Amino acid sequence: MKTTASLKSELLEAPAILEQFLSAYFHQNAERYAYGELFEPLYLDLSEFVSRRGKRLRPMLFLLAYRLFGGDRKFTDPSLLKSAISVELLHAFILMHDDIIDQSERRRGLPTFHKLAEERMGKLENRERIGQNVAMVVGDMLFALAVETLQSTDFPSQSRDAALSRFLRYVTDTGCGEIYDILLGIRDITRVSEDDIVRMYNLKTTRYTFEAPIILGGLLAGASPELLGEVEHITNPLGLAFQIQNDLIEFSHFDITDRAMQTDLLEGKKTLLMRMAFDRLNDLDRSFLQLCLSSSSLHDSSIIKIRELIEKSGAVAALRERMQDLFNRSEKALESAPFTADQREGLREAIAFIRQQTQHTGTN
Amino acid sequence: MKTTASLKSELLEAPAILEQFLSAYFHQNAERYAYGELFEPLYLDLSEFVSRRGKRLRPMLFLLAYRLFGGDRKFTDPSLLKSAISVELLHAFILMHDDIIDQSERRRGLPTFHKLAEERMGKLENRERIGQNVAMVVGDMLFALAVETLQSTDFPSQSRDAALSRFLRYVTDTGCGEIYDILLGIRDITRVSEDDIVRMYNLKTTRYTFEAPIILGGLLAGASPELLGEVEHITNPLGLAFQIQNDLIEFSHFDITDRAMQTDLLEGKKTLLMRMAFDRLNDLDRSFLQLCLSSSSLHDSSIIKIRELIEKSGAVAALRERMQDLFNRSEKALESAPFTADQREGLREAIAFIRQQTQHTGTN
Repeated sequence: MKTTASLKSELLEAPAILEQFLSAYFHQNAERYAYGELFEPLYLDLSEFVSRRGKRLRPMLFLLAYRLFGGDRKFTDPSLLKSAISVELLHAFILMHDDIIDQSERRRGLPTFHKLAEERMGKLENRERIGQNVAMVVGDMLFALAVETLQSTDFPSQSRDAALSRFLRYVTDTGCGEIYDILLGIRDITRVSEDDIVRMYNLKTTRYTFEAPIILGGLLAGASPELLGEVEHITNPLGLAFQIQNDLIEFSHFDITDRAMQTDLLEGKKTLLMRMAFDRLNDLDRSFLQLCLSSSSLHDSSIIKIRELIEKSGAVAALRERMQDLFNRSEKALESAPFTADQREGLREAIAFIRQQTQHTGTN
Repeated sequence: MKTTASLKSELLEAPAILEQFLSAYFHQNAERYAYGELFEPLYLDLSEFVSRRGKRLRPMLFLLAYRLFGGDRKFTDPSLLKSAISVELLHAFILMHDDIIDQSERRRGLPTFHKLAEERMGKLENRERIGQNVAMVVGDMLFALAVETLQSTDFPSQSRDAALSRFLRYVTDTGCGEIYDILLGIRDITRVSEDDIVRMYNLKTTRYTFEAPIILGGLLAGASPELLGEVEHITNPLGLAFQIQNDLIEFSHFDITDRAMQTDLLEGKKTLLMRMAFDRLNDLDRSFLQLCLSSSSLHDSSIIKIRELIEKSGAVAALRERMQDLFNRSEKALESAPFTADQREGLREAIAFIRQQTQHTGTN
């Protein structure tokens, strides 16, 4: 297992290389965004937003997959690094628009982008709306940058085209997942099925978080689309398992006194936890839960009651079991995929690593 | 001038070909957007929104430039048509987000996209916000489709890469122009210079409307970037002239009783007309104008007064003169560009045609 051992040492150095490249990239591109003094502070905000310490799950998975599927460029190769950060830029763009939708105030421990833009408006009456408008457009520009970053690499045009085309499709999938999240959010819970929620999680998060980096890394390494077709059988259950893990972590950390947390629970979102709790309650409890979820703002007492009902329902234990089952299914799919022993081993270790890294804080 | 004559007859047939291709394209792509029943109505709305009769200025200019710069594919060639509509899809994406920012209600005689989405929310309390969120995300998806449409053409990869890279840069320019529009809108008029407004018009509209179609058509026809570098000298004054024409048309059509018109005047936007009127007024009138522009909502009486002040200032006549001067400058740049006689003649006729087509309704 020499290959795997050397890959491990390469991967250990990757995070620092990625951070350095990302920050240099914004520095190098400053000239291109030299639109005058009005735009300057926004470019600095943008660069700061993207550079905030995240887990960099996506570029790391990308690099791993690139190597596992036979790519031989060094992890310091500029085009390889550009491709890796294109997935991170995509992620940052998605977060920026998602935060507007959820009216979130904090992201990675600091203000969301629209809040940063809002702060720049001083005491202006409609600063909140203007901050959101600015963030929407900066998000669009970031999306353009993400595409350009991938497109401007020197990979053979056939594999680069295939990667770019998939990249754009993941944007569409994620957008549709976002729309599902919005539209399921306003539906009565009796009209939201488990399948709806599972599909929403898959479109909104799993595809661009787990599937995209592996597929893109594989395509740029020259792997065949047929072989890479196996990946979704591994990532679909895996992504859902991680999403459930996120839901459970959020529920366990849930603190009624900290409204700034803006959890899915406080926002009345249709999570799998909520749906499974609903299914397991008696008629009276169900009616109460339904009533709470349909109200536009929740009182503290309702939230405490919802929490109690979820605990009472046994949904947490059921979801833990389901999560474990999904991890197992993903593992089985990995075993039966026509991969080499090294590919299997590398992906298995990556998944274990992500599980270990995210078990307390989630994948967000 | 046989070439020009045959090009004219080709161009006469192009609008019908474009409409047909655009509508077939959405039909063909339906499967790719088959995300389930929740998304279906939005895809229909999207297809309807893009198919609304516009002037199709951009794809027409693209086709013209492609032929003038030596491209020999028929106007029925699928890849050529895809490239042409990619500019129209880009335009539709920009309109969608722009309408959210301006909170506009009507677009091409029908509801804006976020209003369509809002209508689908029934009597939901926060339907306005949800409509805007949905429109933001559908806009993102449309942007992805625009890029993919251009990227999936079968042009030689070098010219296609060059076109795609420029395409993305135009998105960035337009985004920055949009941000200038927002940020200048909240500045006191004394702190907004003519240069600021001219730059904003250029970034927000001229580049993607006039420059982009010609450059992209030229690149895909195989013209050299050096030759195409001349284009901006023609389109920069041209775009500004058309923008002034739009401002003047809007001002002349301006109707105080029709608030649904949502003109720049009603929105207190920093137009060149406003800035030039301000420069030409006496101190008392200036103070009044400044006061009106800084208030968050205008009363009818203020609007009538602003209109009177603009008329009194003589800015309309000054702008007419400036517009004519800009058209002349554009014409001169065209004369001195190292183009062939046919290229010159074709571009000149196209500009004359656009002027004639837009003199009553503007280029929007």
